[in-house]
Amino acid sequence: MIENFFEIHHGSKDSRARTGVIHLPHGDVQTPVFMPVGTKGTVKALTKDDLEEIGFEIILANTYHLYLRPGADIVCEAGGLHQFAKWSRNFLTDSGGFQVWSLSNLRKIENDGIAFRSTIDGSKHFFSPENVVQTQVKLNSDIQMQLDVCSGYGVERREAERALRLSSDWAVRAIKEWKNHTESGYRGILFPIVQGNFFDDLRKESAEFVDSLGTSGLAIGGLSVGEPEEVFVEKLNYTVQFLSKSKPKYVMGIGTPEYILEAVSSGIDMFDCVQPTRIARHGLYFHHKGMLSIKQKRFERDFSVIDSECGCKVCRTYSRAYLRHIFREQEILSSMLASYHNLYFLHSMILDIRKAIESDSFELYKKNFLEAFHSGAF
Amino acid sequence: MIENFFEIHHGSKDSRARTGVIHLPHGDVQTPVFMPVGTKGTVKALTKDDLEEIGFEIILANTYHLYLRPGADIVCEAGGLHQFAKWSRNFLTDSGGFQVWSLSNLRKIENDGIAFRSTIDGSKHFFSPENVVQTQVKLNSDIQMQLDVCSGYGVERREAERALRLSSDWAVRAIKEWKNHTESGYRGILFPIVQGNFFDDLRKESAEFVDSLGTSGLAIGGLSVGEPEEVFVEKLNYTVQFLSKSKPKYVMGIGTPEYILEAVSSGIDMFDCVQPTRIARHGLYFHHKGMLSIKQKRFERDFSVIDSECGCKVCRTYSRAYLRHIFREQEILSSMLASYHNLYFLHSMILDIRKAIESDSFELYKKNFLEAFHSGAF
Repeated sequence: MIENFFEIHHGSKDSRARTGVIHLPHGDVQTPVFMPVGTKGTVKALTKDDLEEIGFEIILANTYHLYLRPGADIVCEAGGLHQFAKWSRNFLTDSGGFQVWSLSNLRKIENDGIAFRSTIDGSKHFFSPENVVQTQVKLNSDIQMQLDVCSGYGVERREAERALRLSSDWAVRAIKEWKNHTESGYRGILFPIVQGNFFDDLRKESAEFVDSLGTSGLAIGGLSVGEPEEVFVEKLNYTVQFLSKSKPKYVMGIGTPEYILEAVSSGIDMFDCVQPTRIARHGLYFHHKGMLSIKQKRFERDFSVIDSECGCKVCRTYSRAYLRHIFREQEILSSMLASYHNLYFLHSMILDIRKAIESDSFELYKKNFLEAFHSGAF
Repeated sequence: MIENFFEIHHGSKDSRARTGVIHLPHGDVQTPVFMPVGTKGTVKALTKDDLEEIGFEIILANTYHLYLRPGADIVCEAGGLHQFAKWSRNFLTDSGGFQVWSLSNLRKIENDGIAFRSTIDGSKHFFSPENVVQTQVKLNSDIQMQLDVCSGYGVERREAERALRLSSDWAVRAIKEWKNHTESGYRGILFPIVQGNFFDDLRKESAEFVDSLGTSGLAIGGLSVGEPEEVFVEKLNYTVQFLSKSKPKYVMGIGTPEYILEAVSSGIDMFDCVQPTRIARHGLYFHHKGMLSIKQKRFERDFSVIDSECGCKVCRTYSRAYLRHIFREQEILSSMLASYHNLYFLHSMILDIRKAIESDSFELYKKNFLEAFHSGAF
């Protein structure tokens, strides 16, 4: 474990929520943190300058996609992902395990790793716990993820057990490989991943095992895979109790305001999701009173801004009528502005969350936020 | 004619090229000027801030498209196009004549105007010289165009004659309508349009007629409609000689470096084209040594910038390898960055053109530019 990797600033008296800071090779990251997703080395429809302007200190990229195109060697030759994409702050890369697992009939999970065929050209590839670490070292990730095996909501115990056994085994192998690279100067951190599906004993076993591995941080996987929200909340809370308080915790693939608030309540520090930028491209804007679908006829002559309580440059500038117009006309600008607003909205919500935690009023903030957000009164 | 609407700064001693300034309601426009096209109220894949940053003082929008969606009344209610799109500098709007004419079997050209069906929902509409002026007044265009009738390259004389007769008739009617609006406080300018197809006597007749109408500026239409470049140059030069030197002249729909240089040589002050942003979306970047198609395999590991002589933020930041990667991945960022670069490149070329004119060396500049541009040596 790296000394002082994570410092907790303040634990809210009314929940497990806490603020802190993670010290990473490309700068400090304040927590809780929402990390936008830049799958292929760019967050869709935004420039790196937009992301800096909003205030993000870390973004995600995807190992599977970058491995296939342009290839990790090319990114490495460019000087790593930061140099390639000209993002000077931190990158977290996932291991590609989830993407490869999603290929279902194009992949085979073996004891040593996952054999799969490329969705681009059908070519054969093999991901092992070791070569996935190597790839992420080439990308120069600030936080990298172990290769794990996912399992869907509602699978039989046997499948969940196998996924867990392999994930645990691969965590150990990944850490060993990662240590070799740190000895040669690589400064990124490796997070192992808790699995165990929705079986309490497997979750507990996995959490305790992952926590014992001595890494500086860890991730909670296998949630938000189709289960109802209350199951997500229950299993998340259940899992967290077996993890050291002192480590930063990352729950993968969540990004709606509701899930973020639940995760923060549970003591989660990091989350990511493609959803805010994906729905933006479909004309859905975050509003503090709910989701606003800009295509609606009622906005045709609405010359007010999206959300008068939002301070982003979209809300300081454009009317709903104009944003509706460019959405209907399928202008690229619509995706650009909606993506900007949605990420600004979430980041700004995170800033409020941090303030609320620091003043021991997070649960009150959460209650008020959700009350407004579910009112739909815009 | 409005007093001091256009001031000529300097006429190059080696050609008809000249620099000047047009005084418009939303600020001065230095000439020669390339105007980017924002058909539906936004230049594709760019923000208004990008356009301001590059330095554009005027952009285009399209009356036909805005009339159909969102509708001129909505734009008018928003406070005009500037307020709607939040572009605080000038808008030139075309009349929609060209778009309606292009509908071929969906339109009928009558003596009073053009009846057509919407490409969106098949609804029936009618453009008259008068209502097209009214629409552009609602948009609050700084420079508006008369409704004219185009005719293609290679049509029979009879068709060209009819198009010219209607265009001339409609110019007079448009000016009459426009005068009514100026008396009620509208400050935009109306440009009539020279037609006459590729028949010298018709061109001459049209040019002399349009020039006699007493407007502050005028446009040359019916060129760049499929004819070879040398025919374009010949007919442009032929037309210009019948037009007053003192008026700003706009040749519609051209935007390649070659055509711009020819137009400037002929004494043209204004031009527009969708091409720079359209080709950008197809991965074509302007380079001072030719057109660079970023998808080429040879750029896979090319970590140099697009054009080391270009000062734009794309060329100051990203490598060819990264730009190739995001183009292949069909990332929206690819269209954003390529559009930015291409418009910056053209604007910067225009700045050089102005300097060359001021120092009486425009023809030398043109020769050197084209020599490099045709070398393809990048």
